[in-house]
Amino acid sequence: MGKGGQTTKYHLLNYTPGVIGMVVNYDRLFSSRSKLLKSSEIRELLKLTQSGDFISLAGGLPNPQAFPVDAIHECIEKVFKNNINNALQYGTTEGLPMLRSVLSDRMRKEKKIDCTPYDLLITSGAQQAISFVAFNFLDMGDTFITSAPTYLGALQAFQAFGANCESIPIDHSGINMDSLRRNLKRLNRTGVIPKFLYTVATCQNPSGESIPVEHRKELLEIASDYDFLIIEDDPYGDLIFDGEQIPPIKSFDTKGRVIYISTFSKILAPGFRLAWVVASEDIITKFAQTKQSMDLCSNVFTQYVAYEYVKGGYLDKQVETIRVLYKHKRDVMIEALQQYFPKDAKWTVPNGGMFLWVTLPKSVNTRHMFKRALAQKVAYVIGDTFYPDGSNSNSMRLNFSYSDDDVIREGIKRLGEVIKEEMTIGLEFDRKAYYGASGV
Amino acid sequence: MGKGGQTTKYHLLNYTPGVIGMVVNYDRLFSSRSKLLKSSEIRELLKLTQSGDFISLAGGLPNPQAFPVDAIHECIEKVFKNNINNALQYGTTEGLPMLRSVLSDRMRKEKKIDCTPYDLLITSGAQQAISFVAFNFLDMGDTFITSAPTYLGALQAFQAFGANCESIPIDHSGINMDSLRRNLKRLNRTGVIPKFLYTVATCQNPSGESIPVEHRKELLEIASDYDFLIIEDDPYGDLIFDGEQIPPIKSFDTKGRVIYISTFSKILAPGFRLAWVVASEDIITKFAQTKQSMDLCSNVFTQYVAYEYVKGGYLDKQVETIRVLYKHKRDVMIEALQQYFPKDAKWTVPNGGMFLWVTLPKSVNTRHMFKRALAQKVAYVIGDTFYPDGSNSNSMRLNFSYSDDDVIREGIKRLGEVIKEEMTIGLEFDRKAYYGASGV
Repeated sequence: MGKGGQTTKYHLLNYTPGVIGMVVNYDRLFSSRSKLLKSSEIRELLKLTQSGDFISLAGGLPNPQAFPVDAIHECIEKVFKNNINNALQYGTTEGLPMLRSVLSDRMRKEKKIDCTPYDLLITSGAQQAISFVAFNFLDMGDTFITSAPTYLGALQAFQAFGANCESIPIDHSGINMDSLRRNLKRLNRTGVIPKFLYTVATCQNPSGESIPVEHRKELLEIASDYDFLIIEDDPYGDLIFDGEQIPPIKSFDTKGRVIYISTFSKILAPGFRLAWVVASEDIITKFAQTKQSMDLCSNVFTQYVAYEYVKGGYLDKQVETIRVLYKHKRDVMIEALQQYFPKDAKWTVPNGGMFLWVTLPKSVNTRHMFKRALAQKVAYVIGDTFYPDGSNSNSMRLNFSYSDDDVIREGIKRLGEVIKEEMTIGLEFDRKAYYGASGV
Repeated sequence: MGKGGQTTKYHLLNYTPGVIGMVVNYDRLFSSRSKLLKSSEIRELLKLTQSGDFISLAGGLPNPQAFPVDAIHECIEKVFKNNINNALQYGTTEGLPMLRSVLSDRMRKEKKIDCTPYDLLITSGAQQAISFVAFNFLDMGDTFITSAPTYLGALQAFQAFGANCESIPIDHSGINMDSLRRNLKRLNRTGVIPKFLYTVATCQNPSGESIPVEHRKELLEIASDYDFLIIEDDPYGDLIFDGEQIPPIKSFDTKGRVIYISTFSKILAPGFRLAWVVASEDIITKFAQTKQSMDLCSNVFTQYVAYEYVKGGYLDKQVETIRVLYKHKRDVMIEALQQYFPKDAKWTVPNGGMFLWVTLPKSVNTRHMFKRALAQKVAYVIGDTFYPDGSNSNSMRLNFSYSDDDVIREGIKRLGEVIKEEMTIGLEFDRKAYYGASGV
């Protein structure tokens, strides 16, 4: 094409005759962000486990027995009686005012979080609140901090915006404070200030660990020193079934440094896709603007149902029921682990939540072992998937909330056999390697 | 700080003693994308109109009489009877398989869109589908095309990702094809290939105009020539109450060039926040990955209700009811416009949908007039808000679907008086300006 000459409309497209009219090639059209997307590994693996006689201890599902079916039915009848036209109409982006009001009351009363309905926004599940954090705080190349292991859905949402993850190991105090301080100093020397620290402080997914009160306060001080936010994701705070309730980090926050996220998924029904976020009004305003461009408002009908559920006192009763059920489920799994797992396996004994974390001898690679487990029709989540750097290859996450008691026992029994087999073969392999490939 | 010297943890923060511990300043922390967010002007204005005796013709709400309350009640009972545990549990990201199946059947039968359930994904309202388009196709500085005027929610979602808008004027053929070709040539000369063209091809919001069949085919050819996608947003396709149904652009697409979006908001209930997108499997896969990081899955309970609603034949009956109701509402508004509006006002007479578009004499600035309308307790949407360049200052959007007949008449009467008053003052002002500020 000559300078100033006639252009054709194709010259920018590397036009080849015959290409136009063929099936569209989307590669030119996808955004750089879109190219970063990948499917969740867990999700792909779990598709394999949906046959009848498969035992999956991998999922993260509440127990259907924990669904307050009758209470929901009653609440729905109330909505039909009192508010049906409003419940079927578009709603305000921030959420149903009545629901924000009863939730902020509950936050003050149960969680000692000082907030008004204006500091609280309803989201379509906690995942949406996490994605709002990503959208509003992460530019390409920004850094955030999380524990390792950490909740995968959060990692996925943050990495979808091209951010870098700094991970801090978890210990029995929830997050290793020395490592956190050391890494922050190191980052600081290289000019990096993280945007936020993401934590499931109570009954963490996947480890089941909780951060003790004194470390919660310390985290807040560190965040203040380095001027980053804390994203406190709290889906399991109401599911502590052993020992005392732990106040959220947010309850110690007087400066608007903590964004607190909680959800109806574990205390009402995940199918309703309702959660809430508590943060200072400036952040709530940004989140509302984000929500307007993302989905306008959350499901209004089920917001009314959730309102009747909280207002009518059903929630408080149901939380008690779920705690009793999940404590029992945990005990069933722990007992089975003691019976069927090898002696040198270790596991956490969570005081709440839905998961526990198993650490096997170093010789066992749970990723390698996974196929063997599938062959025995039992599934877990491979531990290294929860580590941003893919480390801790000898660990796994087990869910105790979902399955029937007998299924838990049978699943752990199968898994115990798989592990023992894997360890034997590992030993054989080590022995062979030691004595030479030719064998004895 | 000396080279290699001891750093303090504050040196990057422009630390001033006393600042740490104060209320957090979020400006450093917000992403560049977050800084682009702003509240919807319409939304802020509409907050003013929520008092009792205010008549708002501004909103975009379906009529509550168009909500199939009894049918929904019946469908909910079916869900409790047949599927309650699944309906309360987490669901698949792409949407309830049974719902995807009946919807893809309907797309084939009613819309002549050739698709399978795998080409169809359930979203939390059409706005979410639009935001998935933005997320997956728009990098900062990318260009998209839309008509002017256009749906504000789409503009907002696309601009949230920092994209540039090229707008093409609407005429009675829906979108001015000559202008489109001219602008594409111009863009091409400057090296810009748009990523997509966004259109509400049927009963457009805000204009009420529809693109005729021959232009739909032509649009597809142009998109193919320049290799961009067409985003066909079709919330009103089932609400054509005059004349023949118009096949969607997607029905002519054999190459995967059109992303088709439709919604339950106008034919079931907006409060359910359920919509769907039909596109080629490659795009559906990307959207599912996006949805996983955004909200995991749409409300499962109301997906089951929607399934029963489509499957049970309630939808087909309800569509007929809504058509009759909205045709009547349109006629009431047109009659009132003829009676109360000045002679030189013009309006569209839509064959469906929920809105009509009024063009006033050039001397009337509807933004300027808005305060006068509010004083008379009547509201419309200022026309220039629908124009990316803020032009067409003498236009307004009126909603005919929502209000009771008498309210429509009274609202149009008030508005007619406001316009006539504004025109008189405008004339006075012109006369004064002509004869000099001292007046005659």
